[in-house]
Amino acid sequence: MAKVAVIMGSRNDFDIVKPAYDILKKFGVDVSVRVISAHRTPNEAAEFASNAVENGFEVIIAAAGKAAHLGGVLAAYTPLPVIGIPVKSATLDGLDSLLSTVQMPAGIPVACVAVNGSENAGLLAVQILSLKYPELMKKMTDYKKSLADKIAEDDQKLRNEISLL
Amino acid sequence: MAKVAVIMGSRNDFDIVKPAYDILKKFGVDVSVRVISAHRTPNEAAEFASNAVENGFEVIIAAAGKAAHLGGVLAAYTPLPVIGIPVKSATLDGLDSLLSTVQMPAGIPVACVAVNGSENAGLLAVQILSLKYPELMKKMTDYKKSLADKIAEDDQKLRNEISLL
Amino acid sequence: MAKVAVIMGSRNDFDIVKPAYDILKKFGVDVSVRVISAHRTPNEAAEFASNAVENGFEVIIAAAGKAAHLGGVLAAYTPLPVIGIPVKSATLDGLDSLLSTVQMPAGIPVACVAVNGSENAGLLAVQILSLKYPELMKKMTDYKKSLADKIAEDDQKLRNEISLL
Amino acid sequence: MAKVAVIMGSRNDFDIVKPAYDILKKFGVDVSVRVISAHRTPNEAAEFASNAVENGFEVIIAAAGKAAHLGGVLAAYTPLPVIGIPVKSATLDGLDSLLSTVQMPAGIPVACVAVNGSENAGLLAVQILSLKYPELMKKMTDYKKSLADKIAEDDQKLRNEISLL
Amino acid sequence: MAKVAVIMGSRNDFDIVKPAYDILKKFGVDVSVRVISAHRTPNEAAEFASNAVENGFEVIIAAAGKAAHLGGVLAAYTPLPVIGIPVKSATLDGLDSLLSTVQMPAGIPVACVAVNGSENAGLLAVQILSLKYPELMKKMTDYKKSLADKIAEDDQKLRNEISLL
Amino acid sequence: MAKVAVIMGSRNDFDIVKPAYDILKKFGVDVSVRVISAHRTPNEAAEFASNAVENGFEVIIAAAGKAAHLGGVLAAYTPLPVIGIPVKSATLDGLDSLLSTVQMPAGIPVACVAVNGSENAGLLAVQILSLKYPELMKKMTDYKKSLADKIAEDDQKLRNEISLL
Amino acid sequence: MAKVAVIMGSRNDFDIVKPAYDILKKFGVDVSVRVISAHRTPNEAAEFASNAVENGFEVIIAAAGKAAHLGGVLAAYTPLPVIGIPVKSATLDGLDSLLSTVQMPAGIPVACVAVNGSENAGLLAVQILSLKYPELMKKMTDYKKSLADKIAEDDQKLRNEISLL
Amino acid sequence: MAKVAVIMGSRNDFDIVKPAYDILKKFGVDVSVRVISAHRTPNEAAEFASNAVENGFEVIIAAAGKAAHLGGVLAAYTPLPVIGIPVKSATLDGLDSLLSTVQMPAGIPVACVAVNGSENAGLLAVQILSLKYPELMKKMTDYKKSLADKIAEDDQKLRNEISLL
Repeated sequence: MAKVAVIMGSRNDFDIVKPAYDILKKFGVDVSVRVISAHRTPNEAAEFASNAVENGFEVIIAAAGKAAHLGGVLAAYTPLPVIGIPVKSATLDGLDSLLSTVQMPAGIPVACVAVNGSENAGLLAVQILSLKYPELMKKMTDYKKSLADKIAEDDQKLRNEISLL
Repeated sequence: MAKVAVIMGSRNDFDIVKPAYDILKKFGVDVSVRVISAHRTPNEAAEFASNAVENGFEVIIAAAGKAAHLGGVLAAYTPLPVIGIPVKSATLDGLDSLLSTVQMPAGIPVACVAVNGSENAGLLAVQILSLKYPELMKKMTDYKKSLADKIAEDDQKLRNEISLL
Repeated sequence: MAKVAVIMGSRNDFDIVKPAYDILKKFGVDVSVRVISAHRTPNEAAEFASNAVENGFEVIIAAAGKAAHLGGVLAAYTPLPVIGIPVKSATLDGLDSLLSTVQMPAGIPVACVAVNGSENAGLLAVQILSLKYPELMKKMTDYKKSLADKIAEDDQKLRNEISLL
Repeated sequence: MAKVAVIMGSRNDFDIVKPAYDILKKFGVDVSVRVISAHRTPNEAAEFASNAVENGFEVIIAAAGKAAHLGGVLAAYTPLPVIGIPVKSATLDGLDSLLSTVQMPAGIPVACVAVNGSENAGLLAVQILSLKYPELMKKMTDYKKSLADKIAEDDQKLRNEISLL
Repeated sequence: MAKVAVIMGSRNDFDIVKPAYDILKKFGVDVSVRVISAHRTPNEAAEFASNAVENGFEVIIAAAGKAAHLGGVLAAYTPLPVIGIPVKSATLDGLDSLLSTVQMPAGIPVACVAVNGSENAGLLAVQILSLKYPELMKKMTDYKKSLADKIAEDDQKLRNEISLL
Repeated sequence: MAKVAVIMGSRNDFDIVKPAYDILKKFGVDVSVRVISAHRTPNEAAEFASNAVENGFEVIIAAAGKAAHLGGVLAAYTPLPVIGIPVKSATLDGLDSLLSTVQMPAGIPVACVAVNGSENAGLLAVQILSLKYPELMKKMTDYKKSLADKIAEDDQKLRNEISLL
Repeated sequence: MAKVAVIMGSRNDFDIVKPAYDILKKFGVDVSVRVISAHRTPNEAAEFASNAVENGFEVIIAAAGKAAHLGGVLAAYTPLPVIGIPVKSATLDGLDSLLSTVQMPAGIPVACVAVNGSENAGLLAVQILSLKYPELMKKMTDYKKSLADKIAEDDQKLRNEISLL
Repeated sequence: MAKVAVIMGSRNDFDIVKPAYDILKKFGVDVSVRVISAHRTPNEAAEFASNAVENGFEVIIAAAGKAAHLGGVLAAYTPLPVIGIPVKSATLDGLDSLLSTVQMPAGIPVACVAVNGSENAGLLAVQILSLKYPELMKKMTDYKKSLADKIAEDDQKLRNEISLL
């Protein structure tokens, strides 16, 4: 049963959203990917979020652009933590999506990541789950080490390249 | 029966919202004023908007600040025109409210007015209603004339003051 | 006789504006499309708006970029509701057009949609007209259902694709 | 006969606008101060600008806030140079007024000064007039010298104060 | 033993941060409140975050203003979820704090809430903890109901006030 | 002898600046085009501006990007009107150039046009000169009529195209 | 002989600028404080910067607001490092000053600190001087330790206060 | 032994960063180029900066994008001057990187240059070093002269081209 739901407001956003899915699979977290629009399918959004707990979900990731209400709408109907990914759209360079996602009024939080920051949305979901599922915290520690190793490797390579200039 | 609903996401916004109410009363339009939060009372928001047509409403005005989702959430549930008033909050000087209200994705429009532009929200509602209720268009024409007269009067007064400097 | 006028400040904006025209035709609303510039043909703008009521128009849609004054100028001369489409131009990513359109001073509202949001401008015009012409409200309800169906279909397809990854 | 018209969209803006008037008086330039709104008295704005040349005006200064269309509207009707003063309003910290004034489309320029920059609007008008009226250029040169003297005096005073700290 | 650490970069931010503390106490969550600066006490920040897991913390809340690096610095040293509160400072109206907190590069997420959104930071921490501690989810559901009740009460009161106008 | 100097801070800006030159030639105004940098050739900038009056210049147009100081630096050294063209650079979408050009402190105005608004800079220079050289005002009136004719022609063509859809 | 010059464009900015002076005095660095305007006293600015090296200056700090050209103008005339303090003015919340200071074109750098960041401007000057004057680096290390001690003290106090709540 | 360290948070930023390296080589300054991430290799960042003085570094240049913490993190651990290059990333057009770099809180300065302003970062490092190494100041004066010569050459060429139009 999927622990994390990754929901996008439009099928077109899937390329932006996919890194969240990839990270969750990489950590072995079952994930359900859905297209549900806060504005075009509001009843489905309400129903999905209202039933998320009993359907076994533990974290919801919501990706939307422009006046990005999806995260807030889902958060309104569930006590689960909701992570919002502001998706950059064709105008205003992502500022609209960012402010619409992050500036939630007091009472109903959305955990906002960077504009188009799907990879971090996936990682944040893993971090949240790792409190309950300790094997995930072990994997996260390994993952962070792999990031550090990659930087160290890049550093060594670049120093070599520079020495040849 | 009220033709226009003026809905705000928080009781605290009433001072900002009141000019919309005042304009509608001035034009003799029956109006219902409500506090309904897209995030704290999402079921009420959905129910209100879903039933708005059969309850006789013809225009909905929604005022909200920060990640201002109220207009969009109501618009999702009704075929009626929804006017959004972005309310300036304590940070970001209204830019968050504005972008969250105006940047609606294709399919579900919200008619956005200026930040804290409640008076214009009321006037826009009257203009919309005036297509069906011609006496309102007559009043609107008179109203615009009164605005012009006020400017002309201000102009005359200022010219007098200047001549005395 | 056209009920809606779609006016753009420059012929170059037609590609951006066309979805408004397409929506109106799809809903069977007669529409007149015009190029009138607030700055280069101010007399025509004034004349058009001043005569709009007696020429049978009921809603005006105005699309302009940069210091986008067209919507405001038309609104100054008519009691009809005016919908403004801020057109993104080559610099400042649409922020100039948006603020110039939406931040109308008290007294003369413009109903602003998203930057380049022509489809929503058309839909908003239909919603406004639907108060007087009930068959349009029926069509609007159907249209919103078709949007929901499209999302549901996208959702199903994406879930299938994901299951094959 | 007044050579410069200083026009504001609202009587409330006079305190912001007054430095333009003061500068022009200081330079001995006859000035006419008016309240004319692009949106509330569009016919007066059109008429004023259309007749400005034959009424002897040589420069027009227009001050307006929010969606500040006044400068553009006047410029549309006259071949005279139009100087725009973006007036900061209660929200968005002047950015709306600035972009609405400065981002004029090709063909109809407005000479924009800083937000609330009325003193500079007056000085720019004097500079423009000084091409035709050489005594003004002499005064402008003196004025700039007085600015420099004031800075030099401030410099000396501050150095004295610092030496006493 | 405290499950949540609330860390601020400056003692001056405590008034802004306090609602996070209050919410956590209200939900009966043990909390440790600290002043640790990413820039002035970087070793303490590194040490705190590096030892956070073994010291029993499960969620870290970091509040900072201007170039708000605190959340990111802590997140760099711990696999725990880190919630960032961008604190509005005296210039730029919170935009600097917001972007510095939310725009984390891929690999190291920070869960950003609204500018000065401390109450939501506390609530988000509770939501995260509630996955592991089910009694918190029950309390969260009750809390959300209390928010809805408060809105309903405000709604009723406002309707009464309006009826008396 | 050239009446207008068009100065750019970098040779790379010539493509953006050229419409100013073209407009001035079209109106028969003698123009001198120069590359002078406020930062890389400050002495030349100071010398040019200091001698501009005696060299017969009447208007200076200055185009620069990023921290666009050129207009302000030239204005500091001359009583002539200086028109500033903010040039969009590779980052920040022109906002830096615009604010650096338009936000001049009291005492030293720069007449700012739109980002990359070279055509309008040329037209504004013509308008300014036309006060002294009446034949230019006649040409400007004709030019504005040609703009209106072009819009009317575009309007007719588009209406024809639409009627064929 | 003063090693650091602290220059402001306007006497009014001294309250904002003073922390730079205070820091330099605290570190025992001789400092000269001046009012020199890039726009109102351009010759003095050019002369000051041109002679700065031979007058014994090693670092220049320039504070200015709005279209803040002072740092760039001084940097144009000297090979010395120039530190720019963007001063927040009455509109646009410091964004204009910041972009005008930091976005210098390639070739002529200005070392920009935060809006109103005078204390850091002083510290940066000390850091720069400390390469040549090692006793300053010792003092800087002590200073940073004192900052850390202050934070630790604040931390302890706050923890005590919290324990009493 | 390298006097300047050029550090980037990601190998991908090297193309943006390279002009800083090129400038330093051009001036004959030994430079060490590294990839060290404030977030992915925080220990390496802390260690590098803590040991920078004893390893002979005199200036550190740090380039990072998005929530660009690298400069601030390094500055936290060293008394050396740190120059920050905000790197434009795929969203928000560099504004996030700029504000995250420049808006450092009081106590820990970062000398910020323009977005992607690597060339100026290199030049600023040279200017700082030139106080201690006078031969660099001579080279810097020559360099500035070469910039002026290039502008003068561009000016002459453009004037020739224009004369042929």
